[in-house]
Amino acid sequence: MPHPLFSPEVRFILEKNDGAAMREFTEALHSATVAEALDDHLKVEDSWRFLSHSGIDKQADIFSYLPPEEQVRLVHGVGKQQMAELIEHMGHDDRANLLRRLGPQVRDAILRLIDEAERRDIASLVNFPEDTAGSIMTTDYAWLPANISVDDALERLRLQAPDRETIYYVFLVDEQRRLQGVVSLRTLILAPRKDILADIMETELVTVGVTDPKEKVAQLLARYDLLAIPVVDADSRLIGIVTHDDAMDAVVSAATEDAHLMGGVGPVRDRYLEASFGLIWKKRSVWLSCLFLAELFTFTALSYFEDAISRVIVLSLFIPLCISTGGNSGSQAATLITRALALNEVRGRDWLRIFRHELLMGVALGVTLGLIGFFRASLTPESVRGSSHPRHEAFTIKVPASAPLVRETSGIYLIPGGISQTMVSPEAERIRLPENFDLKEPAPVDGMLTYDFPERCSLTRPPLDRWSLALVIGLSVFGICVWGTLVGSMLPLVFQRIGVDPGIASSPFVATFVDVTGIVIYFSIAGVFLGNILL
Amino acid sequence: MPHPLFSPEVRFILEKNDGAAMREFTEALHSATVAEALDDHLKVEDSWRFLSHSGIDKQADIFSYLPPEEQVRLVHGVGKQQMAELIEHMGHDDRANLLRRLGPQVRDAILRLIDEAERRDIASLVNFPEDTAGSIMTTDYAWLPANISVDDALERLRLQAPDRETIYYVFLVDEQRRLQGVVSLRTLILAPRKDILADIMETELVTVGVTDPKEKVAQLLARYDLLAIPVVDADSRLIGIVTHDDAMDAVVSAATEDAHLMGGVGPVRDRYLEASFGLIWKKRSVWLSCLFLAELFTFTALSYFEDAISRVIVLSLFIPLCISTGGNSGSQAATLITRALALNEVRGRDWLRIFRHELLMGVALGVTLGLIGFFRASLTPESVRGSSHPRHEAFTIKVPASAPLVRETSGIYLIPGGISQTMVSPEAERIRLPENFDLKEPAPVDGMLTYDFPERCSLTRPPLDRWSLALVIGLSVFGICVWGTLVGSMLPLVFQRIGVDPGIASSPFVATFVDVTGIVIYFSIAGVFLGNILL
Repeated sequence: MPHPLFSPEVRFILEKNDGAAMREFTEALHSATVAEALDDHLKVEDSWRFLSHSGIDKQADIFSYLPPEEQVRLVHGVGKQQMAELIEHMGHDDRANLLRRLGPQVRDAILRLIDEAERRDIASLVNFPEDTAGSIMTTDYAWLPANISVDDALERLRLQAPDRETIYYVFLVDEQRRLQGVVSLRTLILAPRKDILADIMETELVTVGVTDPKEKVAQLLARYDLLAIPVVDADSRLIGIVTHDDAMDAVVSAATEDAHLMGGVGPVRDRYLEASFGLIWKKRSVWLSCLFLAELFTFTALSYFEDAISRVIVLSLFIPLCISTGGNSGSQAATLITRALALNEVRGRDWLRIFRHELLMGVALGVTLGLIGFFRASLTPESVRGSSHPRHEAFTIKVPASAPLVRETSGIYLIPGGISQTMVSPEAERIRLPENFDLKEPAPVDGMLTYDFPERCSLTRPPLDRWSLALVIGLSVFGICVWGTLVGSMLPLVFQRIGVDPGIASSPFVATFVDVTGIVIYFSIAGVFLGNILL
Repeated sequence: MPHPLFSPEVRFILEKNDGAAMREFTEALHSATVAEALDDHLKVEDSWRFLSHSGIDKQADIFSYLPPEEQVRLVHGVGKQQMAELIEHMGHDDRANLLRRLGPQVRDAILRLIDEAERRDIASLVNFPEDTAGSIMTTDYAWLPANISVDDALERLRLQAPDRETIYYVFLVDEQRRLQGVVSLRTLILAPRKDILADIMETELVTVGVTDPKEKVAQLLARYDLLAIPVVDADSRLIGIVTHDDAMDAVVSAATEDAHLMGGVGPVRDRYLEASFGLIWKKRSVWLSCLFLAELFTFTALSYFEDAISRVIVLSLFIPLCISTGGNSGSQAATLITRALALNEVRGRDWLRIFRHELLMGVALGVTLGLIGFFRASLTPESVRGSSHPRHEAFTIKVPASAPLVRETSGIYLIPGGISQTMVSPEAERIRLPENFDLKEPAPVDGMLTYDFPERCSLTRPPLDRWSLALVIGLSVFGICVWGTLVGSMLPLVFQRIGVDPGIASSPFVATFVDVTGIVIYFSIAGVFLGNILL
């Protein structure tokens, strides 16, 4: 994202090739701002020309603030020797992040040029799996032995300070690097100068394991309002710290991942307008296609009820309403539970309490929606409840003379007992004539009456009873809402239990599952109440 | 959320009424842990009995870590005088948060007992609107004049330290309290003791206005990796700071709000299992009801196409598939754009670039899904494309002797030209006989043939052409996908422009809107390609 004010200035300075201005610009502004100003699709050599006018520490700092894709682009446009030097001056976590993104060939070429101690440090960090505490920790923390005085400590801290990510927490370790306690710089400043660190250190420590998920690290940091949290290995040896800024980044990226999951995007880590079209198309289309394939089951389910639909067309008009009720109530419950799990407000073992709570809630919500559905369905006009078919061609109807057609009102004829008694159409019952047409009453021939109907008549099916329809819709909405709520609330717990991200439950996949089952619930209820009509 | 280990211990100590153990417990553990252990539905007087054994500073600290609902509960169970004393020892931001949640009567009663200077400080903080920088800032920051030496500064900082939220950033102000610069404690520690602060202070400052949204504060803090960010008023006077821990809380609560919005829950701020059933029911049912009412428009839209459905039943089977395609592609696009907006990766003025990008993407995705849809629809068996109706009763058919029924294969009779030529049913074309039944060929009477059909025949409509159906489904899916993608990507920008949370665009409301328009697109395309059959 270019900086609206400074990016044009950078281009201007580059055009003039004004070295002094470049130095002035990089040294005066915050590294984050400089990075933003440089992140403007500049030519790689221009970016390096600009950067090279500041000191190596500032260069490394600015470089760290560039977005990862831009960092990788710059690496490929500069000599390995220069890059190696820059990397030696970067924060231990930032450089591990960068090297993790480079191909093994480039990475190894650069690593070969780096001092051995640093190289070993980098290698240890790069190998931690993504999303673990190890992958976001840094090894440049401030540490001291516990048996020195405050005065000594402050003096030694001064020497360490320039190379440390933070000196506000000082970690006290023994000869085996086992963590003994922490002293904050604030405590040091306030303590009498002759006190021994061991006497003033905090020993009730919050630590994380190196393979703990980074979300857990961020949660602990937030709960205890810490600036940094020590990361220990299986033997309680201190191997790094995670600082507040990296925890914040972890929270933000977790929120993005959750949102993408809920939106059915799949984890897209690249910035929106920067990422390659093909890559994004692949990710988006894979998710949409999977959803589409899952949703195809609605077609399969509906095929099964095709007969019912063809008999009572009005049932099909309520399909989207019924299934969206399941999807909405399901994703509502899933979102609440997923979020509560993420914030540690509920745990897996609370499942029975959650089940009871959501059962009651589902019933309460189902009654609310069911009543709205009942009310709305009862307003369905007769013309929709009993559908009518316009006919283009003229046609004739023959009926026994003992049961002639009945003129109901002007222009509408009723076939007693329905056409089904004499004709193949099982539904038609009324015939509406075009305007200004009078039907001639036929004379009986062989005990049969032959009616000649003109073009543009309408055949009308018997309307479904208003209250039967309302009952079916109301009950279906109720049942689907209860079902959706229960599925939505239980699935995140099931997913967590089997080690899958519970966020999947708030994604459209579950809505799709509820869609299909909703169709079955809907037509089953319709079958019970309209059985005589549907079969 | 009770603490699994310590909450039982708290109850045990309370039962024994062991004062020494209570003091030991509260003083030894981190305040956050004590708060968690006490947050176990204890009786209010038990909580206070436990707390009262620690010093007032620790009490205030533990109290600050309790969840807001629990804090309010405790306030109502203790004397106003005791509460006032506790509040004087709480962090300035924490107590403002608490008082904001109390009713005006209780608040005023407590405020009256507080020292006047503190009272004025509280009043100024309480009145900032929620979600602004002012509502999460604290006024107990460390500040110094700029013209003193490092040595002096360290000495004066020692005196301020016990009452300050943080001393790691020291803010340098002039007589009008205008912010001149910042010095970090790290810089102070490293600097020669005789240096003057004005010479070593950082003057390129990142500040926020008091009414800036708290999300912006958190973003700036994260971008510049700051521990705290100064909050200034319109005259650049320093009036508070927001620290990293409050910014982290703001990020977490923003993520929760976004997730709730996407899940169609509405902002539920209370913890899942603690909140009152009625309150949660109200919030959830309002959202679900609104979605339900919006989704009712799908019924209205479908009513309009009822005739088309009754003629080609198979069209209705693809409705859920088509509309869910719109919902999914729409919420995918909306989520990506909303998130990119939240992370400042795109801005409103990029709308044309986004439009072009999403138009291309929508076409690419639409082709992908459309091809799947085309392929799947082409596999629809003939029995589904032309639906068949089982008939329970026996019936007869009379046709002219010049056009007798044709025996197509064993048990299936074709009516030449379709039944529509002679009968009222416009669709039926074939009659399938029950197994083991042979139809007797009738003799002509008066030039007419009368066929007697038994019970349990099936009347079959002419099947829709395989490729016509596939074309309609493929094109509809394509069109709806493009439409959903465009709507989903543009709406967040529109919402942001008119000052509405763009997150609404990822909520089910937009999916519902796309559902309704998807129905119109679907049947319009069907109308174009199946016009002769539908009209």
